[in-house]
Amino acid sequence: MQKPQGESVSGVHTESETTGKVITCKAAVVLGPGQPFVIEEIQVDPPQKMEVRVKILYTSICHTDLSYWKGESEAYRVYPRILGHEAAGIVESVGEGVVDMRKGDHVIPIFNGECGDCVYCKCDKTNLCERFRVHPLRSVMVNDGNCRFSTKDGKPIFHFLNTSTFTEYTVLHSACVVKIDSKAPLKKMILLSCGVSSGLGAAWNTAKVQAGSSVAIFGLGSVGLAAAEGARTRGASKIIGVDINPNKFIKGKAMGLTDFINPNDSKNPVHEIIQEMTGGGVDYSFECAGNLDVLREAFLSTHEGWGMTVLLGIHPTPRMLPIHPMELFDGRRIIGSVFGDFKGKTQLPHFAQQCMRGVVNLDEFITHELPFEKINEAFQLLADGKSLRCVLHL
Amino acid sequence: MQKPQGESVSGVHTESETTGKVITCKAAVVLGPGQPFVIEEIQVDPPQKMEVRVKILYTSICHTDLSYWKGESEAYRVYPRILGHEAAGIVESVGEGVVDMRKGDHVIPIFNGECGDCVYCKCDKTNLCERFRVHPLRSVMVNDGNCRFSTKDGKPIFHFLNTSTFTEYTVLHSACVVKIDSKAPLKKMILLSCGVSSGLGAAWNTAKVQAGSSVAIFGLGSVGLAAAEGARTRGASKIIGVDINPNKFIKGKAMGLTDFINPNDSKNPVHEIIQEMTGGGVDYSFECAGNLDVLREAFLSTHEGWGMTVLLGIHPTPRMLPIHPMELFDGRRIIGSVFGDFKGKTQLPHFAQQCMRGVVNLDEFITHELPFEKINEAFQLLADGKSLRCVLHL
Repeated sequence: MQKPQGESVSGVHTESETTGKVITCKAAVVLGPGQPFVIEEIQVDPPQKMEVRVKILYTSICHTDLSYWKGESEAYRVYPRILGHEAAGIVESVGEGVVDMRKGDHVIPIFNGECGDCVYCKCDKTNLCERFRVHPLRSVMVNDGNCRFSTKDGKPIFHFLNTSTFTEYTVLHSACVVKIDSKAPLKKMILLSCGVSSGLGAAWNTAKVQAGSSVAIFGLGSVGLAAAEGARTRGASKIIGVDINPNKFIKGKAMGLTDFINPNDSKNPVHEIIQEMTGGGVDYSFECAGNLDVLREAFLSTHEGWGMTVLLGIHPTPRMLPIHPMELFDGRRIIGSVFGDFKGKTQLPHFAQQCMRGVVNLDEFITHELPFEKINEAFQLLADGKSLRCVLHL
Repeated sequence: MQKPQGESVSGVHTESETTGKVITCKAAVVLGPGQPFVIEEIQVDPPQKMEVRVKILYTSICHTDLSYWKGESEAYRVYPRILGHEAAGIVESVGEGVVDMRKGDHVIPIFNGECGDCVYCKCDKTNLCERFRVHPLRSVMVNDGNCRFSTKDGKPIFHFLNTSTFTEYTVLHSACVVKIDSKAPLKKMILLSCGVSSGLGAAWNTAKVQAGSSVAIFGLGSVGLAAAEGARTRGASKIIGVDINPNKFIKGKAMGLTDFINPNDSKNPVHEIIQEMTGGGVDYSFECAGNLDVLREAFLSTHEGWGMTVLLGIHPTPRMLPIHPMELFDGRRIIGSVFGDFKGKTQLPHFAQQCMRGVVNLDEFITHELPFEKINEAFQLLADGKSLRCVLHL
């Protein structure tokens, strides 16, 4: 029987005319390492048990997309594939057993899922879900090990990072979909999918930055600037940005940076400059550059006794941590942060409301907007360091 | 004018007949790397401003003494020198400005001092004092850069680790002397000077072991067994000891070990055995072996998401931490612990009282007792792994 189309006044529809059917739509497919995205028609299967099919309205690009696009690691080279993990959209339909979302809900995908049932999800010390944490090699759905995407002639198109958002429709496990307030501005909410949550959460949840403290941030991309915003909103009194691109400081001032160091401006190591500026070192440093030499500078920039370095950058290198074991006795600590230590489904709805109330300044992160078809241009902007986030409109 | 001798009924004497004078007494002096200790007469100067002269009644030997005695690092080779840092004694006299101790007080030396005034001492996140933390190269008094010890013909004898306890009398900065309850059994209190405080404090203060949790301890010397005792007294439900010497398990059972692994008994890496025993890994691991391969096993033995490895072993190696930066994103943490994160002067008096009340079982740590003159024999017992602590009676 044909279901009624459109939304009723109450907005309560549990099914749409596409429910249970394959959807044909456009997606940006990557066919090989560094090859331009091809916008093509694909087929998207209905969601299976505990899965959700989402109509993506906005998506953007993060350095992890860039890294997989380039195929920087051999393990990343799985094609054809739909990348993308920062996005916002509307639930089109839900699979069997999904009770916390329904058609029409405003949602954001999260690459670091939260099943709610595993020993990790039940532990308040971690946000790594046993089933839906990041598995760099996973490229199929957890339910059945198959793809929900296929080419018009039926060949599978692989998934990415629990999400795959460079498509008009995607299918995700419900553990990787967060329902947010329908009044939240969807376009900005993409930032909560990855970059802003990761950086700001590293300051709020991982480091637990305290009012009046000092902070140094190494690498002023979106994640680094979000860490600065996190430190600012927690009342840090000194927030030092470190980047070899001086233009980053202009942007960074709006996020609360009080000082800026360009390592190329001095012969002295950055940690010596910071130790001098702060009387011994900062309370917290954030490594957002993905470079081990930078990591060592970040580590030594913190104060002995209590300094904490939070690792956010991705380090595709065989090298080990450039820290001597005896250096740990100086009281400096180093800790990794994934998705800002946010438990996505539990905490992001509240975080979204905080953003709506202006607790966090999201405006500065969106530097460009383009139609979805210009995704290759958007990738280039990020690769060239010209954009923070370029929103693609679908 | 001659001061009255002996103690009055009230025990309140601020001066003794030796106050302000050089004391001639016996000490065990080391003259070269690994050379037998020579018991000889030395001269001990009076304490200067904020210093304390202590009559040592009991002392013992820890692996750090062993390491300096052997001259394992070139920087350690400063001779002649008086080693020793675990001890207990009675204040003989105090220098100008010392108000928290006086003649007759029962005290223990602490190598990790607490001045109470520096930015570190005023911070509740660290027990590293700016002036009196461990400086491996320091071999003179902080006040004037000179020695308080000299040979009979006036040549300086060097200090060690803020303490130097292998002598009938020693001089320490008051930041490195803790007054304890006069009713505390002095002989056992030597254990609070280093080994037991370091191990037990690592469980109590650094890791903050929680009731019901699981623990693995790598290296079952005094520090490792003290960590076990710390975990036991905090209610850990599983305490796994790892050592290549099976005799350690017999001793360790009294300190709460529930399980024992001898790495030589299996072809599988220890971390795999522990992960299997515990359903994914322990909550806390303690590295007390001073070996980087062991450290890696300790790190991987903890549970992803929240596992914490506490570094206690001394690592005189040029090698860096054997941990890949990306491994920090698995949620395992590693942290160093110095002196069990106890602030010595603030916290040890209470800790001593806890020991008196039987909260902590100190009895098992003292395995041997010898007269001071047999110090070479005592060193050999430790070097051979036959003793935990051998108390030397002065």
